[in-house]
Amino acid sequence: MATQNSKPCASCKKHRKKCSESCVLAPYFPSTDPKKFALVQRVFGTSHVIKTLQGIEDYQRGDAVNSMVMEARARVEDPVHGCTRTVHQLQQQIAELEVRLAAMQEEVVTARLKRDEMASFLLT
Amino acid sequence: MATQNSKPCASCKKHRKKCSESCVLAPYFPSTDPKKFALVQRVFGTSHVIKTLQGIEDYQRGDAVNSMVMEARARVEDPVHGCTRTVHQLQQQIAELEVRLAAMQEEVVTARLKRDEMASFLLT
Repeated sequence: MATQNSKPCASCKKHRKKCSESCVLAPYFPSTDPKKFALVQRVFGTSHVIKTLQGIEDYQRGDAVNSMVMEARARVEDPVHGCTRTVHQLQQQIAELEVRLAAMQEEVVTARLKRDEMASFLLT
Repeated sequence: MATQNSKPCASCKKHRKKCSESCVLAPYFPSTDPKKFALVQRVFGTSHVIKTLQGIEDYQRGDAVNSMVMEARARVEDPVHGCTRTVHQLQQQIAELEVRLAAMQEEVVTARLKRDEMASFLLT
C-alpha cells in the first residue's frame, strides 16, 4: 500500500484525495502553489500532465514541468497563438538581424575597398 | 434540434457519435485526417481543444488550430521540452547573430578609422 505524502500535491488537495508518496505531481506541484498547477490543468488537463511525466525519466521531469508551465501560460495569455507567438516574434527578430548583418557586411567590403584604393594611391 | 453534419469531425467519427452542424471541431478536424485530431487530442485532450475554440472568435479558430497542432507535434516529438526547444534554439541563434553583428560593427569602425587616417595623410 502506498504511504501517504506528507506534502500533498495541488491536484490531490484540490480534489480532497489522499496524495500518495508515489504521486508523480507532488514534487513539482505543491499545494502551496495552487496557481502553478491550475495553469497546466487548464490547458493540458490533469491526466495529460500525469501521462507526460510518467512517460519520461525522473531526471527530465523538472524540465518537462517548466516547459508545460511556460506553454500553458502562453496559451492562457494568448488563446489563439499560444507559444507560437513567441516563435514567430523570434523568427521576425532573426530576419531583422540577418538584414542588418548583410548591410553591415556590405559596409565592411566598401570600407575595405576604399582603404585599398587609398593605399595603392599612396604607394604610386 | 441540431442538424447532422454531412462531414463528421474526426472526434465524432472516432467515438461513433452524431456530429452536429454546430460542432466546433468539424471545420478544422475532418474525419479524413484523423492523425491531425489525434495529435491535439493526445496532448491537450478533446475537451480542452473544444473549450479553447469556444472561447475565441470564429475567425481566430483556424489560427488557434494551427498553433495547437504545432505545439502538440512539438510535444509528441520532444515530451520533455515541447515547443520550448524551438524557442531556446531561436534565442540561441539570436545571441549568435548579435555577437556577429557586434564584431562586424567593430570592423566597420576600424575600417572607417583607417580610411580617415589615410585621407588626412593624403590631404597633408
